[in-house]
Amino acid sequence: MTRTLEPSSTDPFFPEIESVRFAGPDTDDPLAYRYYDADRIVLGRSMRDHLRFAVCYWHSFCWPGDDVFGEGVFARPWHGAGDPLAQAERKLEVAFEFFSKIGAPFYTFHDRDLAPEGASLAEGHENLAHMLDRAEAAMDRTGVGLLWSTANLFGHPRYAAGAATNPDPDVFACAALQVRDALEAAHRLGGANYVLWGGREGYDTLLNTDLARENRQLGRFMNLVVEHKHKIGFEGAILIEPKPMEPTKHQYDFDAAAVHAFLQEHGLENEIRLNIEVNHATLAGHSFQHEIAYAAAHGLLGSLDINRGDPQLGWDTDQFPNSLEEVSLAWYALLQAGGLGSGGFNFDAKLRRQSVEPVDLFHAHVGGVDILARGLLVAAAMIEDGAIAEHVEQRYAAWGGDLGRSILAGDTDLAALADLALDRKLDPKPVSGRQEALENRINRYR
Amino acid sequence: MTRTLEPSSTDPFFPEIESVRFAGPDTDDPLAYRYYDADRIVLGRSMRDHLRFAVCYWHSFCWPGDDVFGEGVFARPWHGAGDPLAQAERKLEVAFEFFSKIGAPFYTFHDRDLAPEGASLAEGHENLAHMLDRAEAAMDRTGVGLLWSTANLFGHPRYAAGAATNPDPDVFACAALQVRDALEAAHRLGGANYVLWGGREGYDTLLNTDLARENRQLGRFMNLVVEHKHKIGFEGAILIEPKPMEPTKHQYDFDAAAVHAFLQEHGLENEIRLNIEVNHATLAGHSFQHEIAYAAAHGLLGSLDINRGDPQLGWDTDQFPNSLEEVSLAWYALLQAGGLGSGGFNFDAKLRRQSVEPVDLFHAHVGGVDILARGLLVAAAMIEDGAIAEHVEQRYAAWGGDLGRSILAGDTDLAALADLALDRKLDPKPVSGRQEALENRINRYR
Amino acid sequence: MTRTLEPSSTDPFFPEIESVRFAGPDTDDPLAYRYYDADRIVLGRSMRDHLRFAVCYWHSFCWPGDDVFGEGVFARPWHGAGDPLAQAERKLEVAFEFFSKIGAPFYTFHDRDLAPEGASLAEGHENLAHMLDRAEAAMDRTGVGLLWSTANLFGHPRYAAGAATNPDPDVFACAALQVRDALEAAHRLGGANYVLWGGREGYDTLLNTDLARENRQLGRFMNLVVEHKHKIGFEGAILIEPKPMEPTKHQYDFDAAAVHAFLQEHGLENEIRLNIEVNHATLAGHSFQHEIAYAAAHGLLGSLDINRGDPQLGWDTDQFPNSLEEVSLAWYALLQAGGLGSGGFNFDAKLRRQSVEPVDLFHAHVGGVDILARGLLVAAAMIEDGAIAEHVEQRYAAWGGDLGRSILAGDTDLAALADLALDRKLDPKPVSGRQEALENRINRYR
Amino acid sequence: MTRTLEPSSTDPFFPEIESVRFAGPDTDDPLAYRYYDADRIVLGRSMRDHLRFAVCYWHSFCWPGDDVFGEGVFARPWHGAGDPLAQAERKLEVAFEFFSKIGAPFYTFHDRDLAPEGASLAEGHENLAHMLDRAEAAMDRTGVGLLWSTANLFGHPRYAAGAATNPDPDVFACAALQVRDALEAAHRLGGANYVLWGGREGYDTLLNTDLARENRQLGRFMNLVVEHKHKIGFEGAILIEPKPMEPTKHQYDFDAAAVHAFLQEHGLENEIRLNIEVNHATLAGHSFQHEIAYAAAHGLLGSLDINRGDPQLGWDTDQFPNSLEEVSLAWYALLQAGGLGSGGFNFDAKLRRQSVEPVDLFHAHVGGVDILARGLLVAAAMIEDGAIAEHVEQRYAAWGGDLGRSILAGDTDLAALADLALDRKLDPKPVSGRQEALENRINRYR
Repeated sequence: MTRTLEPSSTDPFFPEIESVRFAGPDTDDPLAYRYYDADRIVLGRSMRDHLRFAVCYWHSFCWPGDDVFGEGVFARPWHGAGDPLAQAERKLEVAFEFFSKIGAPFYTFHDRDLAPEGASLAEGHENLAHMLDRAEAAMDRTGVGLLWSTANLFGHPRYAAGAATNPDPDVFACAALQVRDALEAAHRLGGANYVLWGGREGYDTLLNTDLARENRQLGRFMNLVVEHKHKIGFEGAILIEPKPMEPTKHQYDFDAAAVHAFLQEHGLENEIRLNIEVNHATLAGHSFQHEIAYAAAHGLLGSLDINRGDPQLGWDTDQFPNSLEEVSLAWYALLQAGGLGSGGFNFDAKLRRQSVEPVDLFHAHVGGVDILARGLLVAAAMIEDGAIAEHVEQRYAAWGGDLGRSILAGDTDLAALADLALDRKLDPKPVSGRQEALENRINRYR
Repeated sequence: MTRTLEPSSTDPFFPEIESVRFAGPDTDDPLAYRYYDADRIVLGRSMRDHLRFAVCYWHSFCWPGDDVFGEGVFARPWHGAGDPLAQAERKLEVAFEFFSKIGAPFYTFHDRDLAPEGASLAEGHENLAHMLDRAEAAMDRTGVGLLWSTANLFGHPRYAAGAATNPDPDVFACAALQVRDALEAAHRLGGANYVLWGGREGYDTLLNTDLARENRQLGRFMNLVVEHKHKIGFEGAILIEPKPMEPTKHQYDFDAAAVHAFLQEHGLENEIRLNIEVNHATLAGHSFQHEIAYAAAHGLLGSLDINRGDPQLGWDTDQFPNSLEEVSLAWYALLQAGGLGSGGFNFDAKLRRQSVEPVDLFHAHVGGVDILARGLLVAAAMIEDGAIAEHVEQRYAAWGGDLGRSILAGDTDLAALADLALDRKLDPKPVSGRQEALENRINRYR
Repeated sequence: MTRTLEPSSTDPFFPEIESVRFAGPDTDDPLAYRYYDADRIVLGRSMRDHLRFAVCYWHSFCWPGDDVFGEGVFARPWHGAGDPLAQAERKLEVAFEFFSKIGAPFYTFHDRDLAPEGASLAEGHENLAHMLDRAEAAMDRTGVGLLWSTANLFGHPRYAAGAATNPDPDVFACAALQVRDALEAAHRLGGANYVLWGGREGYDTLLNTDLARENRQLGRFMNLVVEHKHKIGFEGAILIEPKPMEPTKHQYDFDAAAVHAFLQEHGLENEIRLNIEVNHATLAGHSFQHEIAYAAAHGLLGSLDINRGDPQLGWDTDQFPNSLEEVSLAWYALLQAGGLGSGGFNFDAKLRRQSVEPVDLFHAHVGGVDILARGLLVAAAMIEDGAIAEHVEQRYAAWGGDLGRSILAGDTDLAALADLALDRKLDPKPVSGRQEALENRINRYR
Repeated sequence: MTRTLEPSSTDPFFPEIESVRFAGPDTDDPLAYRYYDADRIVLGRSMRDHLRFAVCYWHSFCWPGDDVFGEGVFARPWHGAGDPLAQAERKLEVAFEFFSKIGAPFYTFHDRDLAPEGASLAEGHENLAHMLDRAEAAMDRTGVGLLWSTANLFGHPRYAAGAATNPDPDVFACAALQVRDALEAAHRLGGANYVLWGGREGYDTLLNTDLARENRQLGRFMNLVVEHKHKIGFEGAILIEPKPMEPTKHQYDFDAAAVHAFLQEHGLENEIRLNIEVNHATLAGHSFQHEIAYAAAHGLLGSLDINRGDPQLGWDTDQFPNSLEEVSLAWYALLQAGGLGSGGFNFDAKLRRQSVEPVDLFHAHVGGVDILARGLLVAAAMIEDGAIAEHVEQRYAAWGGDLGRSILAGDTDLAALADLALDRKLDPKPVSGRQEALENRINRYR
């Protein structure tokens, strides 16, 4: 495919906006950071290294502002009619202008965000290769890194019945192509991770679905990906992103525990970790903090999508984070677990549909980054103070005694424990869990 | 403890009610079975053997008809003041009168349903021993079997912070005593299974909880139980009953997948299976059919609690089943998986609080048994017709071809599949999933 | 606007499908009615007159099979590139071919379903006028009637912040134009009703919203519509369709009770009735039966959208009805209330996205119509049998006594009643509500 | 009934706890107020007058710490066996000790919290009279006022099928007695309000329910109450507390809008206002802020129950408030509406069941009062700053123009507006709703 591309413009898309800078909590500037001071050291690391935040290409630059009931309202120049590749190039320029101005150390993308689908697999493959050159150049120019890439295995009609779990193995092969290319893209661009989201790996009705068979297909697919990662020497982590439903009625990667079961069944528990999303956690009936704690307790903590849901709504609203309460509890679980490693905080968040102006992208991200920074400060204070951790340790202190140690060591059996309970006339009394006092304590830090 | 017990009465409690008999669909008798014909052969087995239904001691004979906002309304004679053991004996007589009249092949109980808690562990232990003699005699007399027993590890104040996951190992030991006794009770009474429900194995707040530590405690406990089962030679299955929340904010045995992850982590996936409850499935955000299909696909199908929830309510309403639609889909999943083995259908269901008359117990169970029988007939018709299964098989037929087989056999790698997709210019088209047609088809059978 | 339109084809779109006919419950033909026998008399009226069912133009002919995560998968000829008006004409031909073959007495449409939006208000206005000629001709030719029309006040970007409740009164005026035209279209086409769905009359955040002001705007709008109806002499009913959320976070017409409050506040309770949707009822936390019963109890019953939701999903899934249990309870509430009058059952339902073939439209509607017909038969049997209604009447019989009558007549006051309770030493006992027996009874009829 | 009562003790129940005092944000004392400084003036009124907080007798002094799965764990001396009236007296002493030490200006009670039910209506009536003497004395002694009283019309078996909506008019009369007495108690004790919560005014199944009839009964009851209030000259407000479900499947007072509809229908919209509870709002699918805003927009704002729910749980968890984010938004809505008038903030909240120690009552209330005080400060800052209110005003500014004013004044009709839209070629563009910027703005104040 040879042709001359004429990007419609190389002018700045956000000419009126300077780089966003830290200006302290008292600033009146709504487009300055009040808490995110990249070089500030918190618990021995810079805020930059703690947050490792990423802007999401899809929501911020590809989504046109449509919803189920209405057409796109964001009149971005690259959304109109025109040559798809030229539009992709213009979009990339604008995206990197934004990444730079917001001070993002990372971005994330689906293959189809970066490069147009094309009329055939081959064309999509070439489009991606073409755009990767541009992306690489832009990354070199700006210093923005890649937190992760992923393959869009849900948008094209061929994936209507799933990708790896499709009843048609040809679709499995198409998915293999996209994942190979997107994984190699991550490798080439120095990506810190590679993410798999099983957008349509699930079912709409059990009446036409063979659950056990689809589980085998999915297990095989994940093993193929892991093998390829090792083959090409990609050092980043492979991550699965749980989600309970939407677009399907039931997704196989329902929540952290379901993925944990899957990984163990397919021998992948040491190869794949989790990309946990706030909104997916709450749709699955868990708090975000729970999903982080579960992942941490099982060595599965990978990265985070930090977009929140709405407590009254039953779908993925993908809102920018703005709850210090939610974010600080997540940070606390995270810091206790030793942090995210190669992971980061991805703003897999979209503007509200009425936020039609380009400047709204800045408002949204500035607020999001700032709430993360502020949450970090709160959690760091909790860690440094230590009162809550000490309470928890004290609560379980009796397990350090003879009985507790012998139970956990496997030195006793059920009958012996039963007899001991009778012999010692055990009559343990409930001890206050101090929930209200602990909840008050948390509110001291924020 | 020696004393003379004076059961208040040995008269029938339901004198006006005969044994419930099969009378066919056209009967006008609300207390006759219209579909449950115990000896009728369906798919090669009697209805009795398919259903293996059990009456639940707790809900039907212990619960006084109270709720969070109101006191007990069921004026059963054994609920009043009096000697607890004498009341337990009277209750047992009434329960077996009911089991016999309803024609139940099985019942289920918690240790504390059968025998009073007592003022100490020793007293509870003795009370249980005393009542097991009575229960054994009643079972011999009536021929009613035990589907499973279980230990109540959630009612007594000592379990306020959990049993095996309690911060106090003394509580763990108390739980060991109760489980040993209840498991040995199952063994003595010829129970087909033993069930563990982690009523308070979970947390109210993560602020005071060490998730990883509690997971280790719970894993150790389950291994102790399994070891004891083998030691005493109990042949029944050990079952865990998933539930997502209530009474705690978050139960560790959230759903089938969470228990599956837990079992694998602790090396128990071949030792413990699942007791799946309709109402717990729906509280966890799954259909009942899903939880059965998940368990079946992973070899974890054990037994069922057949009480339903209310689609508009967010707590465990424990209602008697009456939806042919829900029940027949469950049966279909079940029959496809080869049935329940040693499991059965337990009516872990309670009367609505306004159903204050003893006869309401009969209405509830007659309707429940009948909907199960009718659901079985529907699912059997689906199986015999075969149209839906054939559709599913056809849907995946392409996986029987070269590409599909080589993928599943592990004969190919990601790069080869990717190249194949490009080389063959794959362009698979979406195929109708036929959901509406299949849903119509189902409605032909019921 | 003058131009020559070349419909791409006048050939049948469903050439292989005959008219759907009644063939009885035992037919093997999946595209025949098993229960819907239009001329069969049930409770004194024909099934045709009971059901008055309508096919929904939008879902079945305009929606391309896209969802939030994927593009359109329905390759209908009129969805591709081309002249919008020519496509609209082709679509109309196909739609009426479908209405005729399925035997639908009615259809329903939004203005923008029938005619393209156009580049300006004037063009949209003219497009509608043009298409109304075609629609009128097609209706004359086929005998298909209009159950209701409505205006799409949510799709165009101008309605992003609502229509009547928009912060910009110009948008209010645009909405007035669309509603006038759509209402006059209903009048011209002999429509039985006119429906208003406040697609974006609500808010995304209270932070930017003046609830009281928007309530006044909405009240004024509804009064303008009612005045215009009377002015033009439209005899049909004006209906509001409640929905709790989606696309906005909170819709003002949350549920039947919220609309009831609104109508009373604005003096419209005798002018506007309700169009109740199954899926909207359940999203609002009510059963469908509840919303019908509420509307009936307050004289607000208008018409029904009969598409169901999924009990595990928190958004509007708009599925075809297939639950006899849900539908028969709705019918029972409906028949007790005297039926729907000018209303009917609108299939505001969409195919599952994987149901990509044209024939799936037939499967979906045939199953939907049949479940309605079967539900009618069940409810009619309940009415004819009378046992449940008699139970209810008996339950309240005591209100026919002196005390009950004097209370309701207003002949007593609180103090007198209190004294009476003391003087008579009242001690009323709970009476069984017989819920389980009644639920069993229902299962006799279906 | 004459007998000698021997309160078991008159010693302080919380001897180790001093009165809770304001000590500023930096205090380390967990039992001191950090924000609640009763005399501090905020927006022209003292914090005491803003908050008007009340301790709830039921949850804090009557509830024994049981739940659906376990017995009471709070070993309060007055919960054991003994003379009910003596226990009630001891409980009252302890309650007022607590009210005083926590610095509560108000308390709230159900009749049955204060005084034992007794064996008959007459005995309950006398018990209440007896305890009112004691309560009056305690109020005089301590200066604690009554925010509201209410009647418990849901605990006794006679109310199993509702009170005013009971199928038995004798139950209606019993309810009339309790409400007369509780309302007169409020009058005697100088109560600021009287609350009605329809605990079982709803249904468990529509199969046995006549919705329209029960609506008439309830309307009559509310009118009787209002008439009696005027007759005795009670100056406080009559309030209804909405709740969507629990204990019944569906409560008639579902949410603010449902009560609004009911009040208008029965001519009570100027007589009765709302007592809005956080947890009831969220169970009904609304944010707390929404319910306040709805009530304010319709002149129905009465008082608040400030206990929160859990976003993952579907029942009334009645937790103490601790979310500054939730509370500050509620305050903002409240202050914009001019405050609560005679209402206040009632802690209708219970300890978590594991919080077994008496001191936990202090932790819970101190944290709750402080989060209210802090929320007030945040909302006051929002009001004083004015930026958000100004944004809202600007957003609707165009309604101040000719078109907007003529629409709202009723000076135009639908046809004229439609013609105007065409004539002026209206083409309004979407304007940014600025949701993210506003959400960021809010986070500046807290």
